[in-house]
Amino acid sequence: MKLIMAVVQDKDSNRLSDALIEKDFRATKLASTGGFLKAGNTTFLIGTDDENVEQVLSIIKENCKTREQLVAPISPMGGNADSYVPYPVEVQIGGATVFILPVDRFEKF
Amino acid sequence: MKLIMAVVQDKDSNRLSDALIEKDFRATKLASTGGFLKAGNTTFLIGTDDENVEQVLSIIKENCKTREQLVAPISPMGGNADSYVPYPVEVQIGGATVFILPVDRFEKF
Amino acid sequence: MKLIMAVVQDKDSNRLSDALIEKDFRATKLASTGGFLKAGNTTFLIGTDDENVEQVLSIIKENCKTREQLVAPISPMGGNADSYVPYPVEVQIGGATVFILPVDRFEKF
Ligand code: NI
Ligand code: NI
Ligand code: NI
Repeated sequence: MKLIMAVVQDKDSNRLSDALIEKDFRATKLASTGGFLKAGNTTFLIGTDDENVEQVLSIIKENCKTREQLVAPISPMGGNADSYVPYPVEVQIGGATVFILPVDRFEKF
Repeated sequence: MKLIMAVVQDKDSNRLSDALIEKDFRATKLASTGGFLKAGNTTFLIGTDDENVEQVLSIIKENCKTREQLVAPISPMGGNADSYVPYPVEVQIGGATVFILPVDRFEKF
Repeated sequence: MKLIMAVVQDKDSNRLSDALIEKDFRATKLASTGGFLKAGNTTFLIGTDDENVEQVLSIIKENCKTREQLVAPISPMGGNADSYVPYPVEVQIGGATVFILPVDRFEKF
């Protein structure tokens, strides 16, 4: 048995939850901030048998991996039109930091 | 030394805290949601020597185990008396999902 | 690789974050309460190679270790001047409880 701790961006959190539930994996979510990833993030705790670790990692990768997104620029409020970029820019979003921890024992009461 | 991570329902959280304190066990509580258990839940982190693991598990089981509770039905507001069940129903509450993790080293500063 | 879980007081949390970032260590922070330490606390998750564990522990110790602080007494509002202590008192603040966990595998997507 392993405990998978995955830190993902908030924006990917719901999609990851849904994808895990669809495959019958249970996860507990902890509110977390900063550090591994910019902005708000969520830490998933997923307990699973050794033989399912690869599948869980695939689900995390599929739903949270770092990718680029085109962001429409925001028109400057009032002043400073000098810094205005009049075309969409690519920003990096997503990403997951995943620790797979050994579990000595698992109990369910 | 072991780190016991226990996910329990919010409604059992205070009672478990009190029971652990009474036996001199220290726990840190993390706010958590979803997954292993329905609705709001709390994740307890409890560090303890190997020889006390059984005792901590007993305390968790005693205070959080799945059990049935009779719930009085709520009278329908205004309409739809058709769906009204005029007798108490049994619902399942509680439950704990517990991971016992090995600890390489423990420090207190 | 190790996962360092450190429970520290909220008042030391920002300073510890800054000190870790300055040395290129990434941490995820989980909101936590009670237990190991009085009042509000924060649980840091820090993943690091085995050879950096000592350095991370030093940073935690330096920024969070238990120490005494002189606290100016608060003048009693309105009544009960009997319980008023007219000189600063020493209170213990800070402290860190740290678990170093083995990691089977680490992934970044
Ligand atoms: Ni199934
Ligand atoms: Ni005692
Ligand atoms: Ni560097």
